[in-house]
Amino acid sequence: MDLGLLYSAGKDSSLAALLLDPFYTVTLVTATFGITDDWNHARRTAEAAGFDFRTLDLDPAVAEAAVDRMIADGSPRNAIQEVHTHALEELAGEGFSAVADGTRRDDRVPTVPRAQAQSLEDRHGVDYVAPLSGFGRGAVDQLVDARLDVESGPSESVPRADYEAELRALLAEREGRAAVSAVFPDHEQSHVTDFR
Amino acid sequence: MDLGLLYSAGKDSSLAALLLDPFYTVTLVTATFGITDDWNHARRTAEAAGFDFRTLDLDPAVAEAAVDRMIADGSPRNAIQEVHTHALEELAGEGFSAVADGTRRDDRVPTVPRAQAQSLEDRHGVDYVAPLSGFGRGAVDQLVDARLDVESGPSESVPRADYEAELRALLAEREGRAAVSAVFPDHEQSHVTDFR
Repeated sequence: MDLGLLYSAGKDSSLAALLLDPFYTVTLVTATFGITDDWNHARRTAEAAGFDFRTLDLDPAVAEAAVDRMIADGSPRNAIQEVHTHALEELAGEGFSAVADGTRRDDRVPTVPRAQAQSLEDRHGVDYVAPLSGFGRGAVDQLVDARLDVESGPSESVPRADYEAELRALLAEREGRAAVSAVFPDHEQSHVTDFR
Repeated sequence: MDLGLLYSAGKDSSLAALLLDPFYTVTLVTATFGITDDWNHARRTAEAAGFDFRTLDLDPAVAEAAVDRMIADGSPRNAIQEVHTHALEELAGEGFSAVADGTRRDDRVPTVPRAQAQSLEDRHGVDYVAPLSGFGRGAVDQLVDARLDVESGPSESVPRADYEAELRALLAEREGRAAVSAVFPDHEQSHVTDFR
């Protein structure tokens, strides 16, 4: 069974790949608006770990709307949720038997409620799988330590491979770099470099 | 990392064992009130599949209360939920680093809401993992077909290894066999005989 996994080279989507690998023919799929080429960071990790890789083109209008939303909200939360939903919808239309993401039990965003998962499955004729949705923070941290090579640091110094990097770039272009610090809270970023 | 998985030799807990096996030292644990020896069906499947196995003693007073509840409700639903919660609490006190069950995304009972999962983890100092909670019916059915040997049939003809068999026996003893048919809706039962 072929499965496309939304992939950012972060800890969660990398761990999701490891959990799914024994059961599916997994392709790691990094979504891009075409704003930057940060998706190459994910490609390098995917290749190092021996996974098939491809990109998924997202609608640039969704990025513009997401940045509008971030500015209005003063927070990236709703915007990230909307972009994730768009990415899953696009992925579900790509012909895979199953699609997946790295959402965890304790995530605040993005989340995929059960009704949304069922709707995605029914409309696209695919299975949607969230292999980490039954794992809490403690279990995830232990598996990451055991199975992934990770580099961590402030968001600006560690490569971020998914659409969040592109949304940050678009926000900086439209509103200046100070807007990025205002909207995105400081947080430790991590990037997986290889799987064990 | 050692993990104890509540195990019934049904499809869901068997699939959960397969998902967890690459990441944990898994012991399959079948809960019993000591009413019947149906747990031996689970032991045989665990041994055939090469997993460590043990039983977990549950409080007989919980079985009596569950049967009271079934009779009052005319349905096993709330009773099954209460017994599952009791079994998880007992398992969490057994010294494993992590405990798990086979609850699926689409299950009506038993369910383990996020707040209950977090409370179990905090009080017992364990991780609680529900590896199937991000898998819907379609995905579960495909993985079962690919990876498990299953025998299916009406509930009375296929061995049921977990506490539901004991609750049925206790209900029959107290109220007669007709009460079992009245409380438990007819459903196709399945029993895993081996893993592939």
